[in-house]
Amino acid sequence: MAAQALVAAGLTVPDDRVVHSLHSYFLRPGDLLIPIDYEVGLVRDGGSFTTRSVAAVQAGEVIFSLSASFTRPRPSSFEHQVPVPDVVGPEALPPGDVPVSTADARTQRWWAELKVRHPFEMRFVTEPARAAVARGELPGPREGVWLRSCDPLPEDPLMHACAATLSSDLLLLGAALPPHGATHGDENLVSLSLDHALWFHRPFRADEWYLYDMEGWWTGAGRALCRGRMFDRAGRLLATVVQEGLLSYRR
Amino acid sequence: MAAQALVAAGLTVPDDRVVHSLHSYFLRPGDLLIPIDYEVGLVRDGGSFTTRSVAAVQAGEVIFSLSASFTRPRPSSFEHQVPVPDVVGPEALPPGDVPVSTADARTQRWWAELKVRHPFEMRFVTEPARAAVARGELPGPREGVWLRSCDPLPEDPLMHACAATLSSDLLLLGAALPPHGATHGDENLVSLSLDHALWFHRPFRADEWYLYDMEGWWTGAGRALCRGRMFDRAGRLLATVVQEGLLSYRR
Repeated sequence: MAAQALVAAGLTVPDDRVVHSLHSYFLRPGDLLIPIDYEVGLVRDGGSFTTRSVAAVQAGEVIFSLSASFTRPRPSSFEHQVPVPDVVGPEALPPGDVPVSTADARTQRWWAELKVRHPFEMRFVTEPARAAVARGELPGPREGVWLRSCDPLPEDPLMHACAATLSSDLLLLGAALPPHGATHGDENLVSLSLDHALWFHRPFRADEWYLYDMEGWWTGAGRALCRGRMFDRAGRLLATVVQEGLLSYRR
Repeated sequence: MAAQALVAAGLTVPDDRVVHSLHSYFLRPGDLLIPIDYEVGLVRDGGSFTTRSVAAVQAGEVIFSLSASFTRPRPSSFEHQVPVPDVVGPEALPPGDVPVSTADARTQRWWAELKVRHPFEMRFVTEPARAAVARGELPGPREGVWLRSCDPLPEDPLMHACAATLSSDLLLLGAALPPHGATHGDENLVSLSLDHALWFHRPFRADEWYLYDMEGWWTGAGRALCRGRMFDRAGRLLATVVQEGLLSYRR
């Protein structure tokens, strides 16, 4: 929904402006079988920034809301970024599918469903944390994965931003689980996105490999807050993500 | 405006629910001399979450928009947080006013205006980065300061969340400046908040000392993205902040 809402917003924005941030709330459960209407609000058309709001409406109810801001690329007085993690490139890494040997039926099912919904190639930069958890270890709240769209995307920068948005939700909340010895696929684990915020720092190609570095910052009160960073092959920061979600075991 | 909009939203929410997140955009310049109306949208009253939108309207134009989510405190299957920085407590530190010896007239004026608008006591955990910058050094994009409201606040948790919100904007974008040898108060420096996102992790007392740890993540394209973390005296994570702003020299 975040990616689709961003497409809807972007279609109302002049071509010379690109998205630099979005903030969104997941309000109600959606139904995959019912169409969603995206209603765009023309919040502001300013000299430097264009702002849009989007309400995702399903069966008469707003199930998701997003605000996004667009601007013209411009030169900068300042350049600085967080360091890129020192990791192996994607070519040297195996495909990131769940190894049959370390995953039970539930995890296999979770993974298969994820792959259907998210057509991205994935290569974990180290052993996925869930493999260590399966051995009874408690790794830190960190996960890194190379991602790229399985299919080439059109040249339109908006499509790449939308693909990045989709992929940013892929594994992020899972980064909060390893210290608790939990993994997605656990029976009775509730893991649901509550909000999603994303900042784009430079043009993005989602059909070329990018590194997604994820960290769990906080879990408590039945929720978790995680941050993600996307880097290109040259180590340049492409985007920053922060998301809060529900994260708890059903009682 | 973020704090006032949060008050407006909170007044429409049942007493047993507390704010856990907010996302906002600064849309147009405001005028301190013209009243602002806060129009609250009742987005959702759900079983677990209450969501509100707020439009800040001045002279017929929306100058700021905010979405906030409220929930009932509840027990958690998981507890985890980022580590608290190892810093000296506030009692051992001097008041955080700009020393006359290290600040020129512009910096003194910037500071005086800041103090009027933000009635918080401040104590920097190390020498403020701007002092090192004044000596020609280029410190990292990091700043830490103990904060507390100068005046006691009412018991209402909403008031403490709002005070925390106000204080979270205080120095945050400044954390991006030290690596560039720049400081607030520099002639021709443009520093304006574009958005503001805040996650509350546990009950907050803004009239007791809390540590605000700030980091600049990225600067480029005339903008900067910074994150802040608030901790109580016991080292517990109270809140997380992310903000993007305009940051450049006027040409």
